[in-house]
Amino acid sequence: METTLDEIINYLKNLQSDICASLEALDGNATFKTDKWSREEGGGGITKVIVGGNVFEKGGVNFSHVHGKMPDLLKKEIATGAEDTSCFHATGVSIVIHPVNPFVPIIHMNIRYFLMLDKEGGGIIDQWFGGGIDLSPAYPNETDTRHLHALLKKACDMFNTTYYPDFKKQCDDYFTIMHRKEMRGVGGIFYDHLRPVDENTKRSLFEFMQSVGNSFIPIYSSIVLANKERSYNQINKEWQLVRRGRYAEFNLVYDRGTHFGLRTNGRIESILMSLPPHAEWRYDFHPDANSEEEKALEFFQPKDWY
Amino acid sequence: METTLDEIINYLKNLQSDICASLEALDGNATFKTDKWSREEGGGGITKVIVGGNVFEKGGVNFSHVHGKMPDLLKKEIATGAEDTSCFHATGVSIVIHPVNPFVPIIHMNIRYFLMLDKEGGGIIDQWFGGGIDLSPAYPNETDTRHLHALLKKACDMFNTTYYPDFKKQCDDYFTIMHRKEMRGVGGIFYDHLRPVDENTKRSLFEFMQSVGNSFIPIYSSIVLANKERSYNQINKEWQLVRRGRYAEFNLVYDRGTHFGLRTNGRIESILMSLPPHAEWRYDFHPDANSEEEKALEFFQPKDWY
Repeated sequence: METTLDEIINYLKNLQSDICASLEALDGNATFKTDKWSREEGGGGITKVIVGGNVFEKGGVNFSHVHGKMPDLLKKEIATGAEDTSCFHATGVSIVIHPVNPFVPIIHMNIRYFLMLDKEGGGIIDQWFGGGIDLSPAYPNETDTRHLHALLKKACDMFNTTYYPDFKKQCDDYFTIMHRKEMRGVGGIFYDHLRPVDENTKRSLFEFMQSVGNSFIPIYSSIVLANKERSYNQINKEWQLVRRGRYAEFNLVYDRGTHFGLRTNGRIESILMSLPPHAEWRYDFHPDANSEEEKALEFFQPKDWY
Repeated sequence: METTLDEIINYLKNLQSDICASLEALDGNATFKTDKWSREEGGGGITKVIVGGNVFEKGGVNFSHVHGKMPDLLKKEIATGAEDTSCFHATGVSIVIHPVNPFVPIIHMNIRYFLMLDKEGGGIIDQWFGGGIDLSPAYPNETDTRHLHALLKKACDMFNTTYYPDFKKQCDDYFTIMHRKEMRGVGGIFYDHLRPVDENTKRSLFEFMQSVGNSFIPIYSSIVLANKERSYNQINKEWQLVRRGRYAEFNLVYDRGTHFGLRTNGRIESILMSLPPHAEWRYDFHPDANSEEEKALEFFQPKDWY
């Protein structure tokens, strides 16, 4: 059975709606505001943003489908074999949620499909799937972390038992804040350039995309529900702001998607919706010895959760 | 008269002390905390930080003198003609001050000298001076901006009347937040790779370094004194936090010094002391039409101030 671009786009759009509805229900107060935008060179997106909720301080769920002539940057850095006539389609859903409560982790998900054609409406030269889900808590929480990795392992194992260990390691490697020698969070999975070789593998990779996308709400809802009412003090809040500073550092210094967007004249507000509502940078800040804040940094170091 | 590395270092260290003393006097409450640090491969620095003052929320005045074998990155990107035996010295003072009051601008200064020798204690292969001062206000202030540019022009004109227009333009080009199509602030001067051709030009370039360095306090003190007691409201404070977000974006995405430091295993806390104490990112935030906040963005666009 052929897997079409339209089918992938439809899935992604429905996923965006479903996730927003679930997050609104979890929040119980704020609702998503929708911005439709278009890209001059072709395509566009639907950015949905929630702000000032009971549970979510700022969050974005972004769908995009951009297409057109291959930008030079794409030709040079990503796709080999591109001709002057080549065109591309890139579609995906990306999510970053910054909760109010310091005990509810930041979550990030991105699932995407890239397609290169020899010409407009022409034959496929290259295509791949990529994506991932990862969690950036401020505090150690073994229950949440095991839950995350268990559900991701399950989402992977149905397709290939090498996926989870492989993509878990790629995630740990990617979300390292190198200059701090710190991890951004407790990882998850990260994968890219999964290329189908025929219609069967393409169908299977599309189903894997759905398996990852559909795991977002089961993963996050129980983590949110378990922690959203926990009481916290000023120290907890300040530590959350410091960790959000690290999140901003990672995204602005290292994140490939962010840099790609900034350099290809992407829609800035959709790219940078990932940045935290507030963040803090203190000079040479070190948590107290044996505090939960200090333990967090050790807890975030890559470990086998399964 | 020969200009020695020691003489330059002495000037920079004294400048650091003088500037800190002046800033403490302006603040009237907080004092600088001193961290001496050393670099494994050679040299080190003195980082001075003020936090939680009456006037200055967070500020750093950093002296460094690092030296040793040429790092590969330096060989590749900066210095031509480096041999395996080559060694370098880099010394400078860099300053970023984040004030409490939204009507007091952020100021940034960096003056530096780079020297490459054919071997430890050997002959000079290359050397240059670089630096600049620029201002990032949150609000338009013509008096402050003219004062800044008048004093910088004066500091330049004594040496070469082409310096100010040239370095003013370089500053405007450099401090552009490209992805926002916004300026970081109202500019100032920025220069690099000023290479002496003999002892006379070296003396003159060292004197130019001093002319810039010595203009810091005259520039900033009257701007601080004119604005530090101005009353402000919640809107002003929030706009300051949004502009600080832009400041963090610039430093993490574009600033060459920051990236160089992060990739060469520099002292992170001294490199990132430039980041604001608090910053804010709002989704798709636009100031009200005709508000002072909206006028600021137009005011920051490069203009001839003299």
